[in-house]
Amino acid sequence: MKLLLKIKYDGGAYHGFQYQPNAPTIQGILTERISEAFGFPCTVTGCSRTDAGVHALGYCAAASPADEAKRLERWCTIPTERIHRALNVALPDDIAVVGACEVPDEFHPRYDTVSKEYIYLINDGVCPDPFQRGRAYHAKKRLTDADIEKMNEAASFIVGRHDFSSFMAQGSSVSDTVRTLFELTVKRIGDATVQITARGDGFLYNMVRILTGTLLEVASDKISVRDITDIVDSCDRSRAGFTAPACGLYLNHVEYGDYIEFKAV
Amino acid sequence: MKLLLKIKYDGGAYHGFQYQPNAPTIQGILTERISEAFGFPCTVTGCSRTDAGVHALGYCAAASPADEAKRLERWCTIPTERIHRALNVALPDDIAVVGACEVPDEFHPRYDTVSKEYIYLINDGVCPDPFQRGRAYHAKKRLTDADIEKMNEAASFIVGRHDFSSFMAQGSSVSDTVRTLFELTVKRIGDATVQITARGDGFLYNMVRILTGTLLEVASDKISVRDITDIVDSCDRSRAGFTAPACGLYLNHVEYGDYIEFKAV
Repeated sequence: MKLLLKIKYDGGAYHGFQYQPNAPTIQGILTERISEAFGFPCTVTGCSRTDAGVHALGYCAAASPADEAKRLERWCTIPTERIHRALNVALPDDIAVVGACEVPDEFHPRYDTVSKEYIYLINDGVCPDPFQRGRAYHAKKRLTDADIEKMNEAASFIVGRHDFSSFMAQGSSVSDTVRTLFELTVKRIGDATVQITARGDGFLYNMVRILTGTLLEVASDKISVRDITDIVDSCDRSRAGFTAPACGLYLNHVEYGDYIEFKAV
Repeated sequence: MKLLLKIKYDGGAYHGFQYQPNAPTIQGILTERISEAFGFPCTVTGCSRTDAGVHALGYCAAASPADEAKRLERWCTIPTERIHRALNVALPDDIAVVGACEVPDEFHPRYDTVSKEYIYLINDGVCPDPFQRGRAYHAKKRLTDADIEKMNEAASFIVGRHDFSSFMAQGSSVSDTVRTLFELTVKRIGDATVQITARGDGFLYNMVRILTGTLLEVASDKISVRDITDIVDSCDRSRAGFTAPACGLYLNHVEYGDYIEFKAV
C-alpha cells in the first residue's frame, strides 16, 4: 500500500513541485519531512509538475516507504486518519495535508487521474491588492460583464478534444498533444477577482496559463472570438495569447476513480 | 493643505506603523517613498500605532511637505485623484494607497477620528491554512454556532462606555483609560473563518487582541459569560483573556467627519 495525500500549498517560496538538488521544491520538502515524520526513508510521487510560484488547493501525492519491510513494521501502526495531523506538524506552514487515504501499490497519482481542475485568479482592481500579491495576476484592465461574456464565448470554442499545440509552451517535448478539455469558464467571484476554471483529462506544459492569456487578449480585443477556432486548428503557439504569470494558477482538484476516498481533516 | 491617504497593507514584514530607526516600519517606508515620489521631503502622520504584524484595510495617514514653499511649487500640479496612482508605483507591493483627499493643515489623522473599526480573523479549520498564515489566528478549537452565540452574548456586556483597563496591556502609560465601544460582534464569514468586529471611539494598547482572547476563552469555557461585567468593572488585566496574536488583526476603517471625502481608486 501507498499513502495518498491531498495537499494545499502556497507555491510562492518553491521552485515548483519537482525535486531539484539545489532549490526548495514541494517534492523535496515533502520527501524530507515525511521521511523524518515516519522515521524511515519514503519516496513521494506527484500528480503533476507544477511550475515555480504555482499554488495548489488539492494537489495529490503518493508516499511510499523506500523499504517495504519498514512499512510493515512501522507504518501500519498509525491510523490513516491521524497521519495527516502528524505530517502537518512536520511540514512548513505554507504546505498542509488536508486529506489522506491508503491506495494499492499499483496506484500512480499521475497516470491514474480521470481529470484535473485548475483555477486561475485574476485581480482586476485599479491598484494591486497587497493581500493578493503572488496569489493572483493583476490585470491592468477592469473586466466588464461584457468582457467576461466574450471570454466565455471564446472559451466555448476551445472546450473539447483537440490537438492543443497552440496552447503549449514552445520547446516542450511531449509527443501526444491531444487533450480533452471538459470545462473552460470565466466568472467574477469578488469585487476585484475573476476566476478562470479549466478541467480536462490532462494539460500540456503552460497550457492553462496560455489559455488564460488568450482569453485576456480576447477581453482586450487583441484576439477576436471568431478567430479562436482557427487558432486552435493552426497548432501554432504564436497565434495564441501570452503566458499568464504562474502566481495566479492553482491546481484545484484531481479526480480519480470512485475507489479513492480521502479521509478529510 | 495636507494629503490624507487611505492605505491597505500586509503588515507581516513590518515592525508596526511607527517609525523606528533600525527596522522596517510602515511610517518609515511611507515617508521615504512619498518623499521620493514628490521629489521633496514629506512628513507622514498616522491615525494609530499598529503593532508588528498587524494589517490594515483602511489605514489613514496624512502626508505634508516638510517645507511649505515646496508644496506650493510642486504638489499642486498633480491632481489628487492621480496622486495615489503615482504613489502605488513608488510603494512596495505589500502597501497600496486606495484613496486620497486634501485636508486642511489643522487636520490630524489621529485626533480627528470619530471612530475606528478593527476586525480580527480567526481560522478554526482542523489544520492551519497555508493561505491564511500570518493573516489569521489559527484557533485549535472549532467554533460552533453555540460558541459564537455565547461570544456575542459576552460581547454585549462589554459594549458601551467603560474604563477598559482590564483590556489594556500591562505597562501602558495612558492616563485616561475610558473608551466607548460602539460595536463588538462575532460572526462566521467562511467555512473556517470567524470574524470579530470592534468599533469604538478609541482603543487602548492591545485592546482588540485582549478582547478577542477574552471572547475565545468564553468559547472554551475558561471564562463564563456571567463574569464578564465583573471583569470589565474590576479594571484588572489579569482577569481578562489572553492577548490574541497580532497576525489576525486588521485596522478596517477610520471614520472622520463628513468633510472627508476620499477619491477612491
